[in-house]
Amino acid sequence: MPNQYPQIVLASASPRRRELLSSAGVQFQVIPSHIDEIQQADEGPEEFVLRLSQEKAAEVAQRSTISGRWFIGSDTIVLCDDQILGKPENHNDSARMLRMLSGRSHQVVSGYAILDRHNNRWIRRSITTDVTFRILTDHEISGYIASGEPADKAGSYAIQGLGSFMVTQINGSYSSVVGLPLAQIIDDLQQLGAFELFAQ
Amino acid sequence: MPNQYPQIVLASASPRRRELLSSAGVQFQVIPSHIDEIQQADEGPEEFVLRLSQEKAAEVAQRSTISGRWFIGSDTIVLCDDQILGKPENHNDSARMLRMLSGRSHQVVSGYAILDRHNNRWIRRSITTDVTFRILTDHEISGYIASGEPADKAGSYAIQGLGSFMVTQINGSYSSVVGLPLAQIIDDLQQLGAFELFAQ
Repeated sequence: MPNQYPQIVLASASPRRRELLSSAGVQFQVIPSHIDEIQQADEGPEEFVLRLSQEKAAEVAQRSTISGRWFIGSDTIVLCDDQILGKPENHNDSARMLRMLSGRSHQVVSGYAILDRHNNRWIRRSITTDVTFRILTDHEISGYIASGEPADKAGSYAIQGLGSFMVTQINGSYSSVVGLPLAQIIDDLQQLGAFELFAQ
Repeated sequence: MPNQYPQIVLASASPRRRELLSSAGVQFQVIPSHIDEIQQADEGPEEFVLRLSQEKAAEVAQRSTISGRWFIGSDTIVLCDDQILGKPENHNDSARMLRMLSGRSHQVVSGYAILDRHNNRWIRRSITTDVTFRILTDHEISGYIASGEPADKAGSYAIQGLGSFMVTQINGSYSSVVGLPLAQIIDDLQQLGAFELFAQ
């Protein structure tokens, strides 16, 4: 039965994360967080993703006006040769990234942090997935950019969209590449007692 | 521009295969094939999938009433301990399969065969993907069966549906587990001159 004031709060504006959690039947509020997303010197990619996830959840949870018990923060980065590929600035930037990713493997690191505000306990988890692209032609790169899909995506592609034409192989979690490791977070939410799959 | 009489014919009734091909912009007719799907003695899983794919394409292509040049047949099987898990016969059969898949890895073999009817040439390809499930509780298994999703799926699950709550990891092609290795078939269709991505 839908709960009008769900106890779970997703501190993310990402429509992909929302869809993933909803697909498993989780009820939640969406309250986007406002934090700076700047990597610190000597901070590894998994540490960076986990810190941002935790800061997002914490920033929303400290707002006293918000009801709810469990706060989920999440972050996803695309890594190629240890370099983080963010959202593209323009078409040229998208083309640069797609040429970089063509014909090889890169990594997608997705993490989440769940705060139980009742007892101030955290669960944090990150998953790294290898994604392999086939060799892309200039025509395919410019056609894909013209589709508009790369514009607001980290690494300039969406694995769950048209971008699937490029992906020959993954080694890890598909939903994590979309934006949230679904099987893992469902498991953690069930362990915490925040959610039950197929509840009556 | 949509072609009213596409030169590509998909010899498969699977809505998943249709959606995958359409998502990349391929235009095609759908003409389901009618063949017996019985594994031969001493036939390995990849051989079996490739033979069925080829027989499906050939069966439709030999019908003289059908226009079109390229005929695609495809087949997907789920393997656990070298045993093929087909579509479940009933709820008990689904429960048996899901208990078998719980907490471990299994294989999904997807293949396709493309016939160019103009010169009687074939391209055949198969991809094997490892899929890992987390440990499932009896409650999750019965809830998932009650959702209806397992009823018509090989192995009693759909990775692209609600079933994603079970899948912690894959090693291989995601679209292949859905039903057709998309990046590979798009590449082959382009090599054959049957299709061009982002054509004007």
